[in-house]
Order: sequence, then C-alpha cells, then structure tokens
Amino acid sequence: MSEWRKDPIVNRWVIIATERGKRPNDYKEINDEKSSRECFFCEGNEAQTPPEIIAYREQDTVRDQPGWWVRVVPNKFPALSIHGDAQQKNSGVYQYMDGVGAHEVIIESNNHIIGMDEQTDQQVEEIIWAWRDRSLDLRKDTRLKYIQIFKNTGPVAGASLEHTHSQLVAVPFVPEDVREKIEGMKEYRHQHQSCVLCDVIGQEISENKRIVFESTHFICFCPFASRFPFEMTIVPREHQFDFVQLREEQVKDFAHVLRNSLRKLTSMIKNIPYNMVLHTAPVNQGEEHHFHWHLEIIPRLTIMAGFELGTGYFINPTPPEIAAQALRETVEVYHVGEKYEMEVPQYV
Amino acid sequence: MSEWRKDPIVNRWVIIATERGKRPNDYKEINDEKSSRECFFCEGNEAQTPPEIIAYREQDTVRDQPGWWVRVVPNKFPALSIHGDAQQKNSGVYQYMDGVGAHEVIIESNNHIIGMDEQTDQQVEEIIWAWRDRSLDLRKDTRLKYIQIFKNTGPVAGASLEHTHSQLVAVPFVPEDVREKIEGMKEYRHQHQSCVLCDVIGQEISENKRIVFESTHFICFCPFASRFPFEMTIVPREHQFDFVQLREEQVKDFAHVLRNSLRKLTSMIKNIPYNMVLHTAPVNQGEEHHFHWHLEIIPRLTIMAGFELGTGYFINPTPPEIAAQALRETVEVYHVGEKYEMEVPQYV
Repeated sequence: MSEWRKDPIVNRWVIIATERGKRPNDYKEINDEKSSRECFFCEGNEAQTPPEIIAYREQDTVRDQPGWWVRVVPNKFPALSIHGDAQQKNSGVYQYMDGVGAHEVIIESNNHIIGMDEQTDQQVEEIIWAWRDRSLDLRKDTRLKYIQIFKNTGPVAGASLEHTHSQLVAVPFVPEDVREKIEGMKEYRHQHQSCVLCDVIGQEISENKRIVFESTHFICFCPFASRFPFEMTIVPREHQFDFVQLREEQVKDFAHVLRNSLRKLTSMIKNIPYNMVLHTAPVNQGEEHHFHWHLEIIPRLTIMAGFELGTGYFINPTPPEIAAQALRETVEVYHVGEKYEMEVPQYV
Repeated sequence: MSEWRKDPIVNRWVIIATERGKRPNDYKEINDEKSSRECFFCEGNEAQTPPEIIAYREQDTVRDQPGWWVRVVPNKFPALSIHGDAQQKNSGVYQYMDGVGAHEVIIESNNHIIGMDEQTDQQVEEIIWAWRDRSLDLRKDTRLKYIQIFKNTGPVAGASLEHTHSQLVAVPFVPEDVREKIEGMKEYRHQHQSCVLCDVIGQEISENKRIVFESTHFICFCPFASRFPFEMTIVPREHQFDFVQLREEQVKDFAHVLRNSLRKLTSMIKNIPYNMVLHTAPVNQGEEHHFHWHLEIIPRLTIMAGFELGTGYFINPTPPEIAAQALRETVEVYHVGEKYEMEVPQYV
C-alpha cells in the first residue's frame, strides 16, 4: 500500500509509492529501461494489463479481448489505490494516511500509434468521452476530491511506454495548486465581476498576438506568462467550470482543436516531448462555478532546475508572441499513421 | 531586456528571458548542445566570461587573470539584470515589468572539477563564504526581495556547463513557494509555540530512521515527505532564519556535511544528476525570525510529468527510510580530484 505523507512545513502531500518500489540498486539501470519489448497496450496483448475498467468496443466482442478502440485499465504500478483508509494519522510532527485514490491508464488506440496527432478527429473524440466517463464514475466515491487527467509523451516528459495513452489520478484532497487557481479566479471575480479566463479570451482575440487558432467553441493560444517555450492553452469560449459539462458538438470541436494543436507542435519539432494537463473544478466539494476549465499543452524543451525548484518561478527563453507566430505559420506536414489519412486542417 | 510577467490567475511571475532568446529553430539542435568545447570557467580563460564581480585570489594577482580559487561573474546569458525599472505595468488583464534582478555564477574551482564532492572541505568553505558575500552585497539593492542560491549538476538537472559552479538569482518579489514555507512555519509556531524544523530535528534524531548523518552543528536527513528518491535536507541545529548568520565554526562544519552528503550520493550512483537549493529568509522585508534556513539536495532520478505539473504533488517510488539506510551504509569510494587527496570522512 502506498502512503500519503504531508510535508510538515507546507500543506503539500507527497505520495510514497511503494507499489513502484524502487530500491537503491534499481536506479543503476536507469538508462536501460527503454528496451524495445512487446507493447502491453497493443491489441491482442490485453492479458498483459490488469483487467479493463471500461472499453469502447465492437458489439459481440469480449472484455479483455480484441475488438476495442479505447480501453481503460488500472495502472499496473499504481501510485494510489481505492482500497485503504482515508483517515489521517499523526506521528509526532508528521501526518500520513493510506495511499487512497485511483490511478488509471486510458489506452488511446488499439494500434501502436505514438502521437495523439496521428489519430483521426473521431478517435480523439472517443478519448475525450472516455476521460469524461471515468471522471463521472470516479466522483461517485465521495472520498475523492480531485481528478487529474494528463498525458505524457516522450521519455523526457515522463512517458515510460511509447504507445499513445493518457492517465487519470484521482486524489482525496484538492491540491494546493488547484486551490491557488480557484482562489485566483474568485479574487478576480470579486474585483472585476467577471471571469478572468473569459476576459483573457476577449483580450487575446482582440490583441491577436498569441492566438494559435480559433474554432467555434474553443481558442488555443500561447499564454501571456507562458512558463515553457511553445506552451499552449486550449479554453472553451463558454464559461464551464467542469469539463464534463462538454456538450456533444463541443467534444467534436475540442477533439479537432486538440489534435491540430499537437500537430502544429510536432510538425515544428519532430518527436517533441510534451505533457498535457487538464485543469477542471474539484469534485465532491460543492460546485466551483468560478472555475473555467482549460487544457495546457506543455512542451518539455527546457529543464526545471534549482531555481525553479527553489522559487516556483520559471525562466522561458521563447516569448509567447514568437512561439504563437511560429505555430501559426507552421506548415502542417502530417505524419501519416498506419490506418489514418486525414484532411489537412483549414485553420489560420 | 528580459521581462517579468504575472500569470493572470495565480500570483506567480514568470521570466520571459529574451537575453537567452531562443527562436523556434534553435530547439532543433537541442541534442547537439553538449559539444566538448573549451571550458569558459577554467583558469586561464577568464576573458571568456563577463568581468568578475568578486574573486578570492592570491595576493598580487590581477582581476580577470589567473590566481583565483573562487570566482563570481555575471551570467553570460542573464535571466535578469540590475538595470531597468521595477515599476509594474498593466495591459488589460495582464501585468508585467522589466526583468529586474541579478543572475550570477559562482565558479567553484579554478580546475575543471565536475563534482563538488571532489573538492576539499576547505574549498567548499570558500564557496560558502562566496555565497554569503554575494548575498550580503546584493541585498543592499532594496528592490531585491529574495536571493536564491542553487546548484545544478548534470545535464538532466539543468547544468549546461560541466565545470563545477553554483548560481545565484536575486528577484524583486518573495516567491509564492517561499511565502508558503514562511506561512507554514508561522502557522506551526502559532499552534505549538515552537519552530517546526527545530521539532523535526528532535523527532528525526529520536526516531533515527531517516538520518543520513549528524555533525556538531548540522543534521542531514531524508525528509519524511521526500518528493524525490534520495532527497536530503541539511539543517543547522541552531535556529537561524538567514544563512548569512552562519558563524565561522558553522561554515567549517557545513562544508564538511555538504561535501560528504554529496559524496555519499555520488558513491552510490555514479554521475547522479542533482540540484541543490538553499532555502533562507527573504531580504528587505523585515526579518523573518520564524524561518529556519536549510539546504535541499534533490537527485533527479524521476521526472516531473503531467501529474506533478497539474497538482504540484510528487510521486516518490523510494521511501525515505530506505533511501537514508542506503546512504548511511554507502561505502564512500572517493573519486580523487586532480589536486585533492583527502581523508575519508568519519561519519556513520
């Protein structure tokens, strides 16, 4: 059983993940981990993952057998588990509790595709529906307070498996970083009687310096205070606090914007490592109507080092205006996936 | 001129560092940067750095010439500069200001030594004095509110040059992460009428599960809620809020503890990448007597990915009790530097 431990100075919890238990000797082989072995996530290898939680699959196919196009399984080495006791315990100055939570993997294709941008719009829609289904199901466990959906692509960005996948970690606290965003949004609303992200959308459209592209329901832009080169934010034009509020026509549009934002990035820098982070309202905490959900795409071209670890400040060597211009102008050379040959998007 | 930009949602500033100005094309060569060229920091190459700010050097030697053992120069590609206007400006929903601050490099040896643990205790003392001298000098500029001293070793930890060096970045704000530590310490004192780190020292010594070693003036331990495998904290037993309060006998002891902590780490995992981060009280803000200064050694064996970026939570696969045991038991095989052959430390 993993363990949550609270830092005795700041209100931040850490997961001591014994399930992934690395003994000191394990790190000596750190460079050999990327050996090319058979892929656990490819169709036909269903037995190599824990049993599926849900899958979108063809009629008359069987659980944990081929015939699916999106498949969600528990992480084989989960950082957290739904078992255990969510009671905090004390030991002198320290606090800890069982590693309660959930850790799931969304396998985004039955094929060994590496980039989400190599998928069709339709397939990305299915992935978004899977995120939504899992989020709605997990929040039934009222111990869980936040559901973090994210995606790591490339070893530098923390992906240990190549096959395109995203992850979901549900935690029994509202993380401080999420609380900070909520408080910032509340504070702005208090001062201006409006939503800061709604106002950002308005200003970005009118200045037109950092927009990557616009669609019917979303805008994608490089944020004014980008922490990372080519960082992008995708935000719905409509004020929604929780991404599960997405309507069907928005899902379609979100899929299109998401895939094409990534395509622009990978067209510009091949095999670029990146993280995708979905920011949405906490669950089981009362509805946080002030929140405006959004998704961040974070390319990992710079390294978080001592300065960032000490201060929380980031140094970004590429102004977002230059990043956005480059992304807008990128000729979208499409790396054709095995199954998919798609239209070139009509943006810009 | 670089620019500070404030995130419109949270109170966090970002440095848009135009001096290091990376255009989109610069990233395509990202893997070729580590070419083995002549070292700017070696003795004899003083002309290749900006003019020195201070150096500890032999009598009758000349500024920016050989004869030094520690040398401090401005960063050649500074993220921040003492020039410019510390006035915050508005542009609609956004705030920004000139990239005011300071960015210096402490060259820790005149020899091309890579690891701080390859130095003598005496040389590490000199480095600590240089940190202290620069911190005392920079705080005379009352616009500066925090002085972050840190060290990156190894490319994975963000070091772009091999030659052993640390850095100092002085910023015109108290970073949110620093404020969070201060508030946590104040809150604890309010509740318990004592300092949380003083209490942590007491508990660590009495439990004796996470101690790496103890000296007269310091303890080194793997923190209860370690975010990283083999993370270590070095803390003075005496409650001091600002590291410049260090007395001469403490500097000697700190140097010994610091060098030997690193030696344990590098003996266990050769060429381990790590960051060192000094946490001390802000400056020009009234004295923060609640603070208890400390230094963190952060090995970079895990990757901060989407989950960490979204929540601020970390997943650590190696419990600190196991890490501390391994570090305690490590046979300290000393990689002999060119000039230095030292006693094996007597700890454990």
